[in-house]
Amino acid sequence: MIRVGIDVGGTGIQVGVVDENLNILSEASIPTCTSIPFSEQIHQIADCVKSAVRTSGYDMQHIISIGAGIPGIANISTGEIVKCPNMGWNHVPFREEFQKYFTNPVLIDNDANVAALAESVAGISAGTSSSVFITIGTGIGSGIIINGKIWNGFHGIGSELGHVILSLDGVPCTCGNHGCLERYCSATALIRMGREAVAMHPESAILQMAFGDPDNINARTVIDAARNHDQVAKKVYSHYISYLAQAIANVVNLIDPEVIVLGGGVSKAGSFLLDPLVNEYPKYVVYNDQPMPEIKLAVLGAKAGIIGAAMLE
Amino acid sequence: MIRVGIDVGGTGIQVGVVDENLNILSEASIPTCTSIPFSEQIHQIADCVKSAVRTSGYDMQHIISIGAGIPGIANISTGEIVKCPNMGWNHVPFREEFQKYFTNPVLIDNDANVAALAESVAGISAGTSSSVFITIGTGIGSGIIINGKIWNGFHGIGSELGHVILSLDGVPCTCGNHGCLERYCSATALIRMGREAVAMHPESAILQMAFGDPDNINARTVIDAARNHDQVAKKVYSHYISYLAQAIANVVNLIDPEVIVLGGGVSKAGSFLLDPLVNEYPKYVVYNDQPMPEIKLAVLGAKAGIIGAAMLE
Repeated sequence: MIRVGIDVGGTGIQVGVVDENLNILSEASIPTCTSIPFSEQIHQIADCVKSAVRTSGYDMQHIISIGAGIPGIANISTGEIVKCPNMGWNHVPFREEFQKYFTNPVLIDNDANVAALAESVAGISAGTSSSVFITIGTGIGSGIIINGKIWNGFHGIGSELGHVILSLDGVPCTCGNHGCLERYCSATALIRMGREAVAMHPESAILQMAFGDPDNINARTVIDAARNHDQVAKKVYSHYISYLAQAIANVVNLIDPEVIVLGGGVSKAGSFLLDPLVNEYPKYVVYNDQPMPEIKLAVLGAKAGIIGAAMLE
Repeated sequence: MIRVGIDVGGTGIQVGVVDENLNILSEASIPTCTSIPFSEQIHQIADCVKSAVRTSGYDMQHIISIGAGIPGIANISTGEIVKCPNMGWNHVPFREEFQKYFTNPVLIDNDANVAALAESVAGISAGTSSSVFITIGTGIGSGIIINGKIWNGFHGIGSELGHVILSLDGVPCTCGNHGCLERYCSATALIRMGREAVAMHPESAILQMAFGDPDNINARTVIDAARNHDQVAKKVYSHYISYLAQAIANVVNLIDPEVIVLGGGVSKAGSFLLDPLVNEYPKYVVYNDQPMPEIKLAVLGAKAGIIGAAMLE
């Protein structure tokens, strides 16, 4: 029961060979290169797969399936990648191209869905039947697991929590709309809030920790300043937590999964993120006198992409 | 394959006997009476069931199941009603009490879930595997069907679309929070917006149609004035449509069901509601260059409660 998982990202492509216990036996990777034709990109990824399999000590004939998680939307039935801006892919026949090199079944899905699946089987939400995975990074990604399977919507355009509107006529979003949830809950939002705060309060430790240049502020700067009891940073962070708590409550009020899993860069803040969220989100849940979803931090990190992709079926 | 469906409401309780083709063979009803003990209420409902079955020409032994849709939350496994404010019920053993009168299986679920199920099997979304039903009335209710089954969340507290936050720090809600979706998208919201508009523009036809008294304004007043090209009403209605379009887009961005079904009082506006919504909601969907859910009006009306309850299993 050996499978291959491919994590396709904007900077690099990671390939792993995964056994039946979801251990990664071997890995290989290549940098992402968008300047060459699609068929050539696939050729390179195929070579990378062959190399990882060789290292694992198995042959391609032992491989049950080759799965790939991509940062975009895919037609999981046809194996076509519908849209994948970071890779420059638009309606490309991923599976078809891949099967020029392999006879093994090839499966694809969105990267957040794949990570959600990995956590729900081999990670922090293992053993649960329903979960929502939220990645908090430059944007907000999400993956929904219902009855043990990825729910990506009937048309494959669902689980875009980042673009759920959280504030009517709110902050303009890169997608063209206003008030999208990721404008309040992503690392980018925390950075924006940090910069706005230091413009008003240049005495804040946020600015000191950014060596006096607001352009140096990142999510960690704000979080570390808040940890160090800087009053301005604490206020910014408490607003951010309140937004994220409302985002989580929205998922609970609508979907109510068994567990909500937080991943991505901001989740590295650990209990400094988790504890106030667990405390605050129930305030926004309508039936908050009932049992509610647990909120947990993802544990698989970067490995979730490979493991989840290997689990696609 | 004869079943009984019970639609428990704040003003009345409707019972219907439903055949295998989902036709209602006979009906009976009683007014809701919350001043008597729970056990007595169930006694009355049980008598009403017996009467409806008698009228249908069948005996209780022919009845496969007795289902009830309730305006609150239920533990569908234990048959306990957890909370049902309109009935004054709080942790009452509905199934246990009911089975003092019947040996037939007794099933319960939330009324919006039950209506969603009815439309997805016998109504406008018949034949689809996934749908979200939204009732637009005094509040906003919703029911989610995934893979042909009600999805009510792991803890039974989901599909509360009305209390998803649509506007951070927005209009105060009856639930204690701010900016809940139903504060912008319900009939109550449309009435509030109409009243605010006539305070600024007493020349509006809205006020004339309300006989000069803002207290007489209801959702229909605003909708009819907009239909009659009153400029103030048209502006109010266009804001309302924009809010509802964003609410629908939120469901699409997160859940992406095959179909979204609109029911409840406001949906009686028919194509005057549906056409602008169908036109506007894609603007707020992130992958709006892909196939998207159809938006349709519910067709079963008040019968959805009985039919859906009879279909519970």
